Amino acid sequence: MGTTSGPVLALAGGVGGAKLALGLSKVLPPDRLVIVVNTGDDEEFHGLHVSPDLDTVMYTLAGLANPDTGWGLAGESFQTLEMLSNYGAPTWFNLGDKDLATHIRRTQLLSQGWSLSQVTRDLCQRLGIEHAVVPMSDDEVRTVVDTDDGPLAFQEYFVHRHCEPRTRAVSFHGAEVAKPSPTFDTALRSASALVFCPSNPFLSIDPILAVGDVRERILSFKGPRVTVSPIVGGAALRGPAAKMLEELGHPVSCVGVARQYRGLCDLFVLDQADNAHADAIQSLGMEPHVTNTIMNTDEDKIALAKFIRRLLER
Amino acid sequence: MGTTSGPVLALAGGVGGAKLALGLSKVLPPDRLVIVVNTGDDEEFHGLHVSPDLDTVMYTLAGLANPDTGWGLAGESFQTLEMLSNYGAPTWFNLGDKDLATHIRRTQLLSQGWSLSQVTRDLCQRLGIEHAVVPMSDDEVRTVVDTDDGPLAFQEYFVHRHCEPRTRAVSFHGAEVAKPSPTFDTALRSASALVFCPSNPFLSIDPILAVGDVRERILSFKGPRVTVSPIVGGAALRGPAAKMLEELGHPVSCVGVARQYRGLCDLFVLDQADNAHADAIQSLGMEPHVTNTIMNTDEDKIALAKFIRRLLER
Repeated sequence: MGTTSGPVLALAGGVGGAKLALGLSKVLPPDRLVIVVNTGDDEEFHGLHVSPDLDTVMYTLAGLANPDTGWGLAGESFQTLEMLSNYGAPTWFNLGDKDLATHIRRTQLLSQGWSLSQVTRDLCQRLGIEHAVVPMSDDEVRTVVDTDDGPLAFQEYFVHRHCEPRTRAVSFHGAEVAKPSPTFDTALRSASALVFCPSNPFLSIDPILAVGDVRERILSFKGPRVTVSPIVGGAALRGPAAKMLEELGHPVSCVGVARQYRGLCDLFVLDQADNAHADAIQSLGMEPHVTNTIMNTDEDKIALAKFIRRLLER
Repeated sequence: MGTTSGPVLALAGGVGGAKLALGLSKVLPPDRLVIVVNTGDDEEFHGLHVSPDLDTVMYTLAGLANPDTGWGLAGESFQTLEMLSNYGAPTWFNLGDKDLATHIRRTQLLSQGWSLSQVTRDLCQRLGIEHAVVPMSDDEVRTVVDTDDGPLAFQEYFVHRHCEPRTRAVSFHGAEVAKPSPTFDTALRSASALVFCPSNPFLSIDPILAVGDVRERILSFKGPRVTVSPIVGGAALRGPAAKMLEELGHPVSCVGVARQYRGLCDLFVLDQADNAHADAIQSLGMEPHVTNTIMNTDEDKIALAKFIRRLLER
């Protein structure tokens, strides 16, 4: 990764991805980083277009995220939602008053013909974010989790049903005909390196790979590709990744994660707690690299981002 | 107004109209009152359909209105608007967090094909309102104030420009081809009496009269028609009614108001402060009736409603 080469292309989902994205944004200048975010989770609530992963990354990079949850905004209130509940609207999806401004503004601009990329750029600029944060696609892709209770729209599975139904498969409606967003498309051609952030491989990374020809282009990507495991010590740091690995018949460990990246990844970053798995990673065709991957503080995020930058600079 | 005859049809605008509507709702059972509300003030903000007068009447009848302003909701906060401002959205129109739930819900239901009447009925029922509160029309009518600064959309004139530009005329775009809402249409046929609430004649009542054939139907209405003056002692109780009377060349008094109702009204209720104008009212072809018309407390509202009920029962 020389100084004249292209940017680092980071692929991210929600909270875990946002944490590393923040770290990378602290160690790479704006022209050296493109953060592409999953939009398979997008959903319409109350007629408003909600992009949960884009918002989590945006709020995190803007320094506005709720530090207790990792998603949503700090200092949030819920007056609108309470009133919507009085009106008989379903309110199982938690939307704060400040957060709703994002969805209201996005919906209005989309209805005026802006693309999701254009809306996202405008929102990010208004919040003072200098790095590129872009949706994986401007076309609609919707993640559907096929479960023992039948197929469930992503937020229905994830929020309303608390990931409780057993997963059989995950599909991405619209992905085949969707195109990568313009900035993603450019980055797939120009990026010098690729980072899979520590996000759920099935729910956050697979939808990005499912867009158009993205998987093929990453399979033949020229620069180094690095994955950070979202599983540490046999458990997901957050969310249903561990549960889904088990339900889909994979080892519940960073090895189970690495299996999902065969052919897509060259360097695999695992937590020091998982040192014993290094050989198994190697045997999957990836170079194992051990460090602390748990990002509680901004210092943790920056340290992990620097670790990755060093790997990519070799 | 016998017990077997039709309901009282009350025509209302915003705060003043809502106060009398509340009084009437306290002295007439739900099957004896239909409140028809001006929607010429409706406007889209942030892609959401806002119906200021409908909301003022609805919040007032639900006991939720902000007692200090007469419009908006009590205990309101403004987090969403502040965040919308961060996003560069124009925020001169004050929208509270709770209030936004109304606009979000309305917009969603309208986009699903509900009529404004259906949406309003649903919202009112959810808030426990038993009396009929209906829009003047389910079709779009937009009040435009022609001023020395050119034509201004109603909210632009009223809120953004604080009614400062001098009025030349007021027009109601779409009114000619609009139809009265179904409940309004039925009430125009079945009502036993008609009440013009103390609302601005130019901005709140004229748009209702401009809808389709409403003016003709009220000119030939069979039962007693009563107007309550919104001007007391030469000043508007609120809003630009006095300023507009002057700008449009009318006396700034209840007589100026009464002029607007010639042929449309039989009984004219003026404030005790305006006792001296009774003869002038009489000479316009309306029976003057003097009482206290200033509604500060719920008792004032009920007393005025009872006064009107007695007039209509003669």
